[in-house]
Amino acid sequence: MSLKSWTVQKKGNVTSPKGFSASGMHAGIKKSKKKYDVSLIYSKKPCVAAATFTTNKVKAWPVLYSMKAIKSAQKHHAFLASSGNANCVNGKRGKDSVLESVEVAAKALRITKEEIIIAQTGLIGVPFPTTCFKRAIPTLVKKLSLKGGRNAAKGIMTTDTKTKEVAVSFSLGKKKVTIGAMSKGAGMIHPGMGTMLCFITSDVSITKQLLRRALKQAVDESFNKMSIDNDMSTNDMASVLANGASGAKTINKVGKEYNLFRDALTEVCQVMAHKMVDDGEGVGHVCRLEISGAKNVRDAEKAARHIANSMLFKTMLTGADPNWGRIIAAIGASGVDFKMEQVDVVVGNVMIVKQGKLRALSLPKARKVLSKREYGIHVVIGKGRGRSKFLTSDLTVKYVQINAEYS
Amino acid sequence: MSLKSWTVQKKGNVTSPKGFSASGMHAGIKKSKKKYDVSLIYSKKPCVAAATFTTNKVKAWPVLYSMKAIKSAQKHHAFLASSGNANCVNGKRGKDSVLESVEVAAKALRITKEEIIIAQTGLIGVPFPTTCFKRAIPTLVKKLSLKGGRNAAKGIMTTDTKTKEVAVSFSLGKKKVTIGAMSKGAGMIHPGMGTMLCFITSDVSITKQLLRRALKQAVDESFNKMSIDNDMSTNDMASVLANGASGAKTINKVGKEYNLFRDALTEVCQVMAHKMVDDGEGVGHVCRLEISGAKNVRDAEKAARHIANSMLFKTMLTGADPNWGRIIAAIGASGVDFKMEQVDVVVGNVMIVKQGKLRALSLPKARKVLSKREYGIHVVIGKGRGRSKFLTSDLTVKYVQINAEYS
Repeated sequence: MSLKSWTVQKKGNVTSPKGFSASGMHAGIKKSKKKYDVSLIYSKKPCVAAATFTTNKVKAWPVLYSMKAIKSAQKHHAFLASSGNANCVNGKRGKDSVLESVEVAAKALRITKEEIIIAQTGLIGVPFPTTCFKRAIPTLVKKLSLKGGRNAAKGIMTTDTKTKEVAVSFSLGKKKVTIGAMSKGAGMIHPGMGTMLCFITSDVSITKQLLRRALKQAVDESFNKMSIDNDMSTNDMASVLANGASGAKTINKVGKEYNLFRDALTEVCQVMAHKMVDDGEGVGHVCRLEISGAKNVRDAEKAARHIANSMLFKTMLTGADPNWGRIIAAIGASGVDFKMEQVDVVVGNVMIVKQGKLRALSLPKARKVLSKREYGIHVVIGKGRGRSKFLTSDLTVKYVQINAEYS
Repeated sequence: MSLKSWTVQKKGNVTSPKGFSASGMHAGIKKSKKKYDVSLIYSKKPCVAAATFTTNKVKAWPVLYSMKAIKSAQKHHAFLASSGNANCVNGKRGKDSVLESVEVAAKALRITKEEIIIAQTGLIGVPFPTTCFKRAIPTLVKKLSLKGGRNAAKGIMTTDTKTKEVAVSFSLGKKKVTIGAMSKGAGMIHPGMGTMLCFITSDVSITKQLLRRALKQAVDESFNKMSIDNDMSTNDMASVLANGASGAKTINKVGKEYNLFRDALTEVCQVMAHKMVDDGEGVGHVCRLEISGAKNVRDAEKAARHIANSMLFKTMLTGADPNWGRIIAAIGASGVDFKMEQVDVVVGNVMIVKQGKLRALSLPKARKVLSKREYGIHVVIGKGRGRSKFLTSDLTVKYVQINAEYS
């Protein structure tokens, strides 16, 4: 990644970029009237769009709809979202529900159906309450506001304990370009509930092809490198709408401007990924894992993924226990080639293993680091240039309790 | 598998086959004097041997020794084992420790070093207490007894709550052939401790090549199809010694006799695998998972493995919650092709999903089944002939507590 050339607005969100309005409200999908369960994000100016979807073979109806919409239309105007019901594996009525809801929204917004991207999250395998969703849509449209980003972020929460929002700005020529985002938690949150969702808006002007490329790279370096419980949802989606309202010139080739945008977009996705892990189910510790010295990037990623997903590694974090044997066993299990005598393990700034040998005296210090809410663990596995980062969390009693509850 | 042609002796163990003696005792590797920590199994008659080892790239010293011993020697006489320290990633002194211990045992038993197969289990990354192990070996040899199987089974326990033993007999011509086994728990038991170990003895007469082949097939259908926490140990080993003392004719080709032996050996390994899962860390429920209707066996295994290892599936078992959406999401995540409208899900004898549709009225009954200690879950995913079984367990608060403790 290049030197940081952007500024992060912590209070920014999807309505920070020019030309985007948003709204959120309670429609009745969730029982509690205090909880928002529907959201809308809208740009009057037409947007190019890109999205990445779950690779789970089982895809929810809204995912199937949005995959098609992004392929068939060249321009888009809106994100429509709901929470509380994933609208997944619930038969043909689930499909009809999506079509009917999108139709109502298209009419109210005076756009075509294909110009809407929809995402839904919640319980799998139950009928979707279409009526209350459809009834809420005209009100959602009326409520659209340039300051509605926060409300929209509320409308996609499930067991998230806080909204997840950010905006990042950078200069392109003499114009200020902004990217805003909102997302909801990872971890197949709540019994049978799915989904990490991320909605991104930007006033950048860019071709559809390059937007897709930038999103893919950003997602690979963020959402694809985090782990809470290694379960893959049926509803996952990260999507971006870019309306060009910044007035900056169009990014139409790979080069300095493209890199600027891609890096800022990656930052947005990484901030979102961090917020998700930090707010993951029962998470008590967040670990920024880094592997270096691998033969190549692929090996580094493989080792990082194996450690990050190992239940024994995760419970070691739970207990703030610098049990380096579990790290070594996980690397070994990954199948990656490495030599024990080249392994360093650094917890925070405490080296506990140097060239394969334990430094027993440093363990109490390492235990202190692991007692913090968040820290880095860096594992050097050889002399190669392969390097990878991964965001992971501990596995707690609370996680088991949350997920063992009756649905 | 063919019709059952063997009998299971529940009280049988490694000294059930003719010509095997065994012993176990406290040597001092574990602190508590009440706990056995060393074991020896011996056959005066030379044995052919076979073994499967962990595929973890990090292998403990005893594993490296035994891999070599089995390759270099044609005949073997003994299993030597210890528990409390895995003798793994602890430098060259760990390697020397194995060589010295085996040398002491070889001298006491008047055999060569290569005729001994050694396995060790326990904490990774700490120096091995060689002195007390070496001191105990001559006593272990003196204690060898035809009734010593139970004591040997005690010597390999770590956090296992009970010994794991079985014997199976069948007729070969007019001779009775017996296979005995002892094993220790799966789950990387206790902080940083590794290992599933299985020691098998038989008085069958068989060629080394066919013994290897039969063991591989048996292990594939048992230990390779169980899941407690999907972590792979650095010390795993399943090994068999066959001394021919039954007097039955030598099995030297694939055919009826070979199949008889292989099926009985598979039964032994399956009983052992079941005992391990049943005694797994914090396990509250044991699930016999079966997938059928897959395109082929590979797909069936892939789907079964994915479900069995999913944390959301495991916590669903913890909560006795027939949350079928998690099963479907796990199959989807496995990447296997299937059609939702061909999916049946049967919990015990209760069908909760038929041809992709939920039978909501059957859920209370399914909940009852899931409240039992053990049950089967059968998932049909299509019209194909691919079928696979997998043994798995729930993920409990106790598991997290055990593994989050300080080492």
